[in-house]
Amino acid sequence: MPGAERDIEGSAAFFEVAARQRACREYTDEPVDDPTVRRLLEAATRAPSAENTQPWVFVVVRDPQRRAAIGELTRRAWTQGARQFSEGRLTPDLLADVEVGALGGIAAAPVLVVVAGDTRLALEVVLGASIYPAVQNLLLGATALGLGSALTTLPTVAGRELADLVGLPPEVKALAVVPLGWPARRLGPSRRAPVADKAHAEVFGVPFTGGEA
Amino acid sequence: MPGAERDIEGSAAFFEVAARQRACREYTDEPVDDPTVRRLLEAATRAPSAENTQPWVFVVVRDPQRRAAIGELTRRAWTQGARQFSEGRLTPDLLADVEVGALGGIAAAPVLVVVAGDTRLALEVVLGASIYPAVQNLLLGATALGLGSALTTLPTVAGRELADLVGLPPEVKALAVVPLGWPARRLGPSRRAPVADKAHAEVFGVPFTGGEA
Repeated sequence: MPGAERDIEGSAAFFEVAARQRACREYTDEPVDDPTVRRLLEAATRAPSAENTQPWVFVVVRDPQRRAAIGELTRRAWTQGARQFSEGRLTPDLLADVEVGALGGIAAAPVLVVVAGDTRLALEVVLGASIYPAVQNLLLGATALGLGSALTTLPTVAGRELADLVGLPPEVKALAVVPLGWPARRLGPSRRAPVADKAHAEVFGVPFTGGEA
Repeated sequence: MPGAERDIEGSAAFFEVAARQRACREYTDEPVDDPTVRRLLEAATRAPSAENTQPWVFVVVRDPQRRAAIGELTRRAWTQGARQFSEGRLTPDLLADVEVGALGGIAAAPVLVVVAGDTRLALEVVLGASIYPAVQNLLLGATALGLGSALTTLPTVAGRELADLVGLPPEVKALAVVPLGWPARRLGPSRRAPVADKAHAEVFGVPFTGGEA
């Protein structure tokens, strides 16, 4: 098994961090300092992007009023459509958790990172492929340090209003808001369907078992 | 610095893996076994997705003819438009590297993972936010194990043809192809703009220095 033979130092730690990641929607008011945020953003900027254009834009928001305003956009997107869409789709537990986040939990995080994509650097069609890998690095870095985080897109529903709150030029599109802070309570494990339900061998419909019976 | 105080075991290893990631476009013919692919897909499925819908679909392609056909789609997208678009935008080094990959390097990897999103599980508008974080986990996992990998979207330009090659139903959209294999040569460091060029404090245009002078 070549993979195992070449297992390099620290590889197990990566898989452990990936397995531990999950969304946090309630935070303490304990601060997250600038060097920590910077370290996470450095990890984010190691992600790949189309043509290595690095079209990512990060706006680090700490100001309480600005965070509250972003929180209000989140609350509005939730109460004016998203909740109705999610009811009946989500389990009651997950619905309650998302609601806590949307109604103020996310905005209470001491840091909100607005993540955007610069269409002057990359075509809009490849913006998702060029921004969300960086977002994932940010989330994994937070997880590695024991910080809570989440990938939220609700506040981007009001795209222009969110853009105005952090002064984005028209060519820069907000794609996500990532709260960073210390979890208010212990986070349980994430719930995921097994790989066999999601992976196929050669053609769709033939389960990829990965060597398992 | 709360981040440093709570630095948990293995967190440095995550940041090291993130820093080491880069695109590989030339592979040896040494195989990558199924348990290794499975391990990477397990990491991929720990990523977040909208409403935890987990709309990811992975098709693991090993068949040489199918890989060659995917390679042909890549070559065609490159020679019939993408190269012209990239000329003058990319450095000569990067252009040459991408060309090697597009003209056969990527397809020569022993495993190609076609990554798609199921629009029956998640709205198309949130598919990128729900698929590319999983792709990034896949890439980081490969990096952790010393495997080469890359996030390629060129073969998805011919969306329907790629979908047909791996039997995707019409509701399942191909979003990326990730080659996995052992690098044919040592990969140098990735080139990235510094965080200060990409991060802003409170509003766009005010550099976020992260505590550095």
